[in-house]
Amino acid sequence: MKLSHRITHLTPGGSDGWEVFYRARALKAAGQPVIELTIGEHDIRTHPSILDAMHASAKDGHTGYAAVPGTEALRQAVATRIQTRTGVATTPDNILITPGGQAALFAAHTAVCDEGDVALYIDPYYATYPGTIRGIGATPKAIPAYPDNGFQPRASDIARHAKGAASIMINTPNNPTGAVYSHATLQEIATTCIEHDLWLISDEVYDTQLWDGDHISPRALPDMAERTLVVGSMSKSHAMTGSRVGWICAPTKVIEHLINLATHTTYGVAGYIQDAAEFALGQGEALEAEISAPFARRRQITETLLATQNIVKGSPIQGAMYAMLDIRATGLTGSAFANDLLDTHAIATMPGESFGVAAAGHIRVAMTIDDETYKSALQTLLDFATTKAA
Amino acid sequence: MKLSHRITHLTPGGSDGWEVFYRARALKAAGQPVIELTIGEHDIRTHPSILDAMHASAKDGHTGYAAVPGTEALRQAVATRIQTRTGVATTPDNILITPGGQAALFAAHTAVCDEGDVALYIDPYYATYPGTIRGIGATPKAIPAYPDNGFQPRASDIARHAKGAASIMINTPNNPTGAVYSHATLQEIATTCIEHDLWLISDEVYDTQLWDGDHISPRALPDMAERTLVVGSMSKSHAMTGSRVGWICAPTKVIEHLINLATHTTYGVAGYIQDAAEFALGQGEALEAEISAPFARRRQITETLLATQNIVKGSPIQGAMYAMLDIRATGLTGSAFANDLLDTHAIATMPGESFGVAAAGHIRVAMTIDDETYKSALQTLLDFATTKAA
Repeated sequence: MKLSHRITHLTPGGSDGWEVFYRARALKAAGQPVIELTIGEHDIRTHPSILDAMHASAKDGHTGYAAVPGTEALRQAVATRIQTRTGVATTPDNILITPGGQAALFAAHTAVCDEGDVALYIDPYYATYPGTIRGIGATPKAIPAYPDNGFQPRASDIARHAKGAASIMINTPNNPTGAVYSHATLQEIATTCIEHDLWLISDEVYDTQLWDGDHISPRALPDMAERTLVVGSMSKSHAMTGSRVGWICAPTKVIEHLINLATHTTYGVAGYIQDAAEFALGQGEALEAEISAPFARRRQITETLLATQNIVKGSPIQGAMYAMLDIRATGLTGSAFANDLLDTHAIATMPGESFGVAAAGHIRVAMTIDDETYKSALQTLLDFATTKAA
Repeated sequence: MKLSHRITHLTPGGSDGWEVFYRARALKAAGQPVIELTIGEHDIRTHPSILDAMHASAKDGHTGYAAVPGTEALRQAVATRIQTRTGVATTPDNILITPGGQAALFAAHTAVCDEGDVALYIDPYYATYPGTIRGIGATPKAIPAYPDNGFQPRASDIARHAKGAASIMINTPNNPTGAVYSHATLQEIATTCIEHDLWLISDEVYDTQLWDGDHISPRALPDMAERTLVVGSMSKSHAMTGSRVGWICAPTKVIEHLINLATHTTYGVAGYIQDAAEFALGQGEALEAEISAPFARRRQITETLLATQNIVKGSPIQGAMYAMLDIRATGLTGSAFANDLLDTHAIATMPGESFGVAAAGHIRVAMTIDDETYKSALQTLLDFATTKAA
């Protein structure tokens, strides 16, 4: 009687770089004021009009089993949104509604990887990526994306790892780095996928948080629609993190199998949540802009404050709700810096080392608190760095 | 670029015994009146008071990421319910909240089976069981439970398959047969688990629908708490099928790993749904009794009508919302009977063959429509059988 190797090896033993986060939470639980610049959650809640739409749907009786693929109306709404924004023909048969983006990432890898297959991902990475791959028994392999290239992966690094792999997962706009992949980067990834016959799993959950340039969905690049699984979600775009509703957009034959998988893994998503999501998408880009606006403001605050000193260097914050700050001039590791900052100033950030090897010597700052507190905390952080570098 | 073997082999090709169900749905969609006695869903919706509790929680701001293991309050409510009903010491650390019972079954198998491991289940079975096992790359193996033994598996059949297996999944009260496993059956299963070092995955989602005898959770048998993963759900007990909220109760070390798995597969359950579930459990057994009462009435209708003839034989309906009817005296297979009944009388039932080999020559009737319509449809079915047997 043993637990599976898969579950006991989901995450490697030892430090996972999240100690600062857990320490901050413990301090807060003990009543100490801590400013948390750690995780990717809005400082607002889901819009009341969305909650009212949800309640109306539930009261109207949409509380029984919903269709496992998703309601026809929500699948259509998602398909329309994608087709409108990317120009790629998309129908409801290209869409599976999932209980959140994470479930979509897991399902996408299950669809394209068997036990022992190599699944590529980019480092720095969102915390769950390698465990998602290990969770289905596949082998994660990281492709580094270095700060000297704006955290965009280089063609040579991608090509070096691609041979024999089953898939590659990318995320643009990127968590944790704030990078938005350029057309050139995405075309190199696409070319590699075609040359080495890889599936592309494209996590685009930050597609409404774009501060610089355009969001390009790689599904829209030549010959890529047939080999791309796009993961989307209502979490970041509509401040619906807790509602756990997202989707996969993929070729119809892939979706057919994914529907069968969903029957055996989740059995669909609450109908009233899907109706709420449909309502939210129906509000169009105005609501999305309202929800992303605070991060645009705080990105500007960040750029302005960074320009007042020359110890901490910012990577370009092109998208998403994070600033990845280079603190190597302090002589500290990201982990040492973050722990020290928490101890001395009660400000919690994430060490770059939490996200792999390529962001060592950095800290990630989530711009997820009100503007004034954010501005003050960032100033304290910069002053702290200056003291350390002295 | 290929799809995984796992996803393309989730369900075997060819007939899956669900043609009658899909034909009935197609007929209804085309505007033809069809009486559906097919799937396990209440003819009522979720109680408005539960929906109001959900809305209040959402409006109160519980729309952000909830704790991945589940809210402390819901984990406690589930633990208390289990401890009270089984006598086994149970704490929140024994509980993972999942997005429904199906997700719990999938997670439980992921925790205890690796690629290629043999996972046992009982035939007749709920439709998703073998695919759930295949979905994680394990090998399903069925143990038959025959009608001549009241659809209770025999010790000799269990023992014959147990050697070298990793786990066995059981379901009592049982879908599709309506059997409730006796203490003797469960003790034989427990003894086999201990002798062959198997995990037991015990699906108890029908634990409030009990018409005859007691529901025994096998986790309460000697030395079984350490090797049993109990799957529970709000779907059947509280008519919350669409809300997708359930749980696993297991040893704390298993739950620790399952929480890590949940972080990578689902990332938790909506906080407002968990608050609604906590509210519903807080209503105690009175609400559960109200929700199960219609099935108790229809079970009595079934027993009464069956006693008026001697062609169709009923297995004892000890629990759950189904009647498994032996129609072998008609000389038809379950599939032929069900198809013919749909064609001639517009009544849809499930062929026993949909649920494996052991229920061949049977049909399953879901008692999920209003009493009068149910009574009339069952009488029509019995008359039809009498005609066929003549």
